Amino acid sequence: MPTLAEIARALSTEVKGDGSLSVDRAAEPAEAGPRDLAIALSPKWAESLPKGRAEAALLWDGADWQAMGLKGAITAPRGRLAMASLSAVLDPGHGMGEGIDETARLGEGVELGAGVGIGPFSVIGAGARLGEGVRIGAHVTIAAGAVIGAGTVIHPGVRVGPNVRLGARCILHPNAVIGADGFSFTTAEPTHQELSRETMGEGEPPVMADPSWHKIHSLGGVELGDDVDIGAGTAVDSGTIRATRIGDGAKIDNLCHIAHNVIVGRHCLFAAQTGIAGSTTIGDRTVIGGKGGVADNLTIGADVVLGGASIVLSNVPAGRVMLGYPAMPLARQVESYKALRRLPRILARLSGTGS
Amino acid sequence: MPTLAEIARALSTEVKGDGSLSVDRAAEPAEAGPRDLAIALSPKWAESLPKGRAEAALLWDGADWQAMGLKGAITAPRGRLAMASLSAVLDPGHGMGEGIDETARLGEGVELGAGVGIGPFSVIGAGARLGEGVRIGAHVTIAAGAVIGAGTVIHPGVRVGPNVRLGARCILHPNAVIGADGFSFTTAEPTHQELSRETMGEGEPPVMADPSWHKIHSLGGVELGDDVDIGAGTAVDSGTIRATRIGDGAKIDNLCHIAHNVIVGRHCLFAAQTGIAGSTTIGDRTVIGGKGGVADNLTIGADVVLGGASIVLSNVPAGRVMLGYPAMPLARQVESYKALRRLPRILARLSGTGS
Amino acid sequence: MPTLAEIARALSTEVKGDGSLSVDRAAEPAEAGPRDLAIALSPKWAESLPKGRAEAALLWDGADWQAMGLKGAITAPRGRLAMASLSAVLDPGHGMGEGIDETARLGEGVELGAGVGIGPFSVIGAGARLGEGVRIGAHVTIAAGAVIGAGTVIHPGVRVGPNVRLGARCILHPNAVIGADGFSFTTAEPTHQELSRETMGEGEPPVMADPSWHKIHSLGGVELGDDVDIGAGTAVDSGTIRATRIGDGAKIDNLCHIAHNVIVGRHCLFAAQTGIAGSTTIGDRTVIGGKGGVADNLTIGADVVLGGASIVLSNVPAGRVMLGYPAMPLARQVESYKALRRLPRILARLSGTGS
Repeated sequence: MPTLAEIARALSTEVKGDGSLSVDRAAEPAEAGPRDLAIALSPKWAESLPKGRAEAALLWDGADWQAMGLKGAITAPRGRLAMASLSAVLDPGHGMGEGIDETARLGEGVELGAGVGIGPFSVIGAGARLGEGVRIGAHVTIAAGAVIGAGTVIHPGVRVGPNVRLGARCILHPNAVIGADGFSFTTAEPTHQELSRETMGEGEPPVMADPSWHKIHSLGGVELGDDVDIGAGTAVDSGTIRATRIGDGAKIDNLCHIAHNVIVGRHCLFAAQTGIAGSTTIGDRTVIGGKGGVADNLTIGADVVLGGASIVLSNVPAGRVMLGYPAMPLARQVESYKALRRLPRILARLSGTGS
Repeated sequence: MPTLAEIARALSTEVKGDGSLSVDRAAEPAEAGPRDLAIALSPKWAESLPKGRAEAALLWDGADWQAMGLKGAITAPRGRLAMASLSAVLDPGHGMGEGIDETARLGEGVELGAGVGIGPFSVIGAGARLGEGVRIGAHVTIAAGAVIGAGTVIHPGVRVGPNVRLGARCILHPNAVIGADGFSFTTAEPTHQELSRETMGEGEPPVMADPSWHKIHSLGGVELGDDVDIGAGTAVDSGTIRATRIGDGAKIDNLCHIAHNVIVGRHCLFAAQTGIAGSTTIGDRTVIGGKGGVADNLTIGADVVLGGASIVLSNVPAGRVMLGYPAMPLARQVESYKALRRLPRILARLSGTGS
Repeated sequence: MPTLAEIARALSTEVKGDGSLSVDRAAEPAEAGPRDLAIALSPKWAESLPKGRAEAALLWDGADWQAMGLKGAITAPRGRLAMASLSAVLDPGHGMGEGIDETARLGEGVELGAGVGIGPFSVIGAGARLGEGVRIGAHVTIAAGAVIGAGTVIHPGVRVGPNVRLGARCILHPNAVIGADGFSFTTAEPTHQELSRETMGEGEPPVMADPSWHKIHSLGGVELGDDVDIGAGTAVDSGTIRATRIGDGAKIDNLCHIAHNVIVGRHCLFAAQTGIAGSTTIGDRTVIGGKGGVADNLTIGADVVLGGASIVLSNVPAGRVMLGYPAMPLARQVESYKALRRLPRILARLSGTGS
């Protein structure tokens, strides 16, 4: 277990008070014992310190740790960044070791870098190339010819399809699916949906001689940059003739859907259940809240922020902060919500005065 | 196959007519054969009885079963409750037997209660403790040290991560993921998203020297109470420094997302594709319709009802019934929908009169 | 590799220019090399041809291929349909061969048609019947008694539950779950949710002696027609007393939820993250955009189109094009969006004039 001084060093800061205190784990202030590091990054959290028995805490910059009765403390100007370093120090890791399990199935010509680990019952297709230190959990399938960058970690139950290239240090969380078929179908004649774009939905459905959907096969695969996280159960579909692409450093949460031909920029962050429809491009550093959705064939600029559950139906210029369904710039959307709330009373008044 | 009298006993009621009738299965009235129990819990459903050949039926209290030409019947004051008992009697079960499959992989020091069953190719991490009668299907992974309460059933393809404790009699449906990493990231400098809370989105995106996302590791794990159901493909993320918690008797449907640090109360019911963002607390007995969403760091009281696809962006007091995006109390939301529908005509009139 | 003339034949059209050109793959115009077929189905796409080195292209009908400096071309009156044929010609296939892997586990009495393939570590329950040419990937579980039609392809990690019948030529994408328990629960006494239908949410929550949820077991299974696609991670729940049904030719994308007792018509198309709640019926050829939702116990007619993220809370007649939450006919919804956008200014004016 690290000492307080060791943790301070990992956080590139100095310890206050007794640096020799040993830290078993991080804990909420009210639940912290004498060998825990209480996490109290704001005065509100620090209020609960007396309910626990912490002797050391991670506090905000300028906090009066001695007045809190602590024996030692670390303070941080940006608490969540300190939490990132601290949690990395305390994380015992994913437990996937080096070495190829005897039940793992490797196809012909698989290339393994130094220190690769492959878990029980996993199946690696012919000609796949796994970079140095790649770790693959149990029950993973990797299609033939996949390329997996050094240090990438693939959790149990992940499915990697054909024509997939993963960068270095990616993390694929359990049961994610990379490189399934894109959902791309067409009919012999125009459908009601196609026709209704012109008629604003007022036309009659066509009588189709053959309403069968013909599949447009996905030949393009998927390319993930370096340091990409893909959440549990998330699906990233194969592109049609070029790869679906996710840029370096992008982080995608659980149960998201990234459709065929989508391009996701570098350092994007998409919260859970987000969906990006086919052939849409998302600029660098764009952040999408949970349940966000972007329609197909759109261009979303860099540095865009979409609030939770926003649904985007048209292009968005760089830097915009958007909310709602359909998404509008935040300030206008909030104005419109307020107006809508007043509306029933105002309509009643208008009726009342006969206007 | 049970007789009508045996079924009546399981439903704690008395049979009407011939209790010796043998029942092969439950069936819809129009499709019921002479050895089926027709399910006709309302007069509307009973109308279809003549289309089938049922001789026995499950009916509402007070139904005139003889006038329907039946030989026997069971009546129930609360039909769906009767269906629960009836369907349990007729369910042949999940088919996972006792015993450890020869291909299952058990780590060191795994503790198994009496009557445990583990299916083919499943992998149980070192030191995991499986209570009496636990049943685990094929292709399941359980991380080291997990604790699984007596009678819990884990279907194929489920992933149980580190620091997970499951109560007794839980059911984890296929491909669910319990205890994946929480989606918790931060940057060295404030992001556009952070800054835009103060500017209502009107400010310029900051130029960041380093736009990389630093992961806050998930050390807290997950705790499920007793009698919790987790749907197919649903993901419950690990907490940061304490466990993500789901209370006794909570039922969560398919493809839901429960983020890190969330607390779900006892006897909650969340329909499919619901998402609860990080660090939100949901009170006991709260019911969320399909595709419901709750933003992060909120407190939702007990006995709240969220209608289908409601998106909650602020705290909700106990007992409220809410609908919409953003969610509002049901009656006000419906008023607002009605007003919005009238609005185009009213605006046109206002323009017309030049006001 | 096919020649241009061979591809033209597969597309039932004639080649223009040099049919002997060999085609390695399809490519976007700007990225196409001399042995690629550039896909330029509109003048806009053709603008990028000079950036690449394509000598052959797939163009729209009437395109002046010679003016583009190409040596050969194929033109198509309906580009996406041509893409379907072309991509099928160029697709190397899923790579699942004939034959039963030595690690696959087959239960008693499994019946296998000619040419069946079963991948590593898959588990097929007793009495299951697999039609001619069925291909099953790695880590698949098929419950006892399942019936799988000829030519159906089941990708890795798919879970097929009890009482499931799949038609011919279906494709189940990775980690899909067919036939999990329906999410059907009831309480001994009426819940707040039930009571609030009458009170519009204004009543107090009842004090329940027992708030436990009683499960209504799923005995009905699932029936898929022929040529049904089920996307990655999608869940189709078992019906209560009759099967949940999906009609011939229906295509369902990733991470969709089809609840118990739902009936989906023939040739429906549901984009990713769509959810259909319990006991709802959807007519033939209905198309639902991504993140669409339909509440329970509704009837949606044939040839309905629901725009992206539409949430349907009441029945929809055949042929309607709907958008929004709650969904309204498209033209009215767009009118209402426009009015809402004008509303804040109008309300401000009304206040200003004191009216």
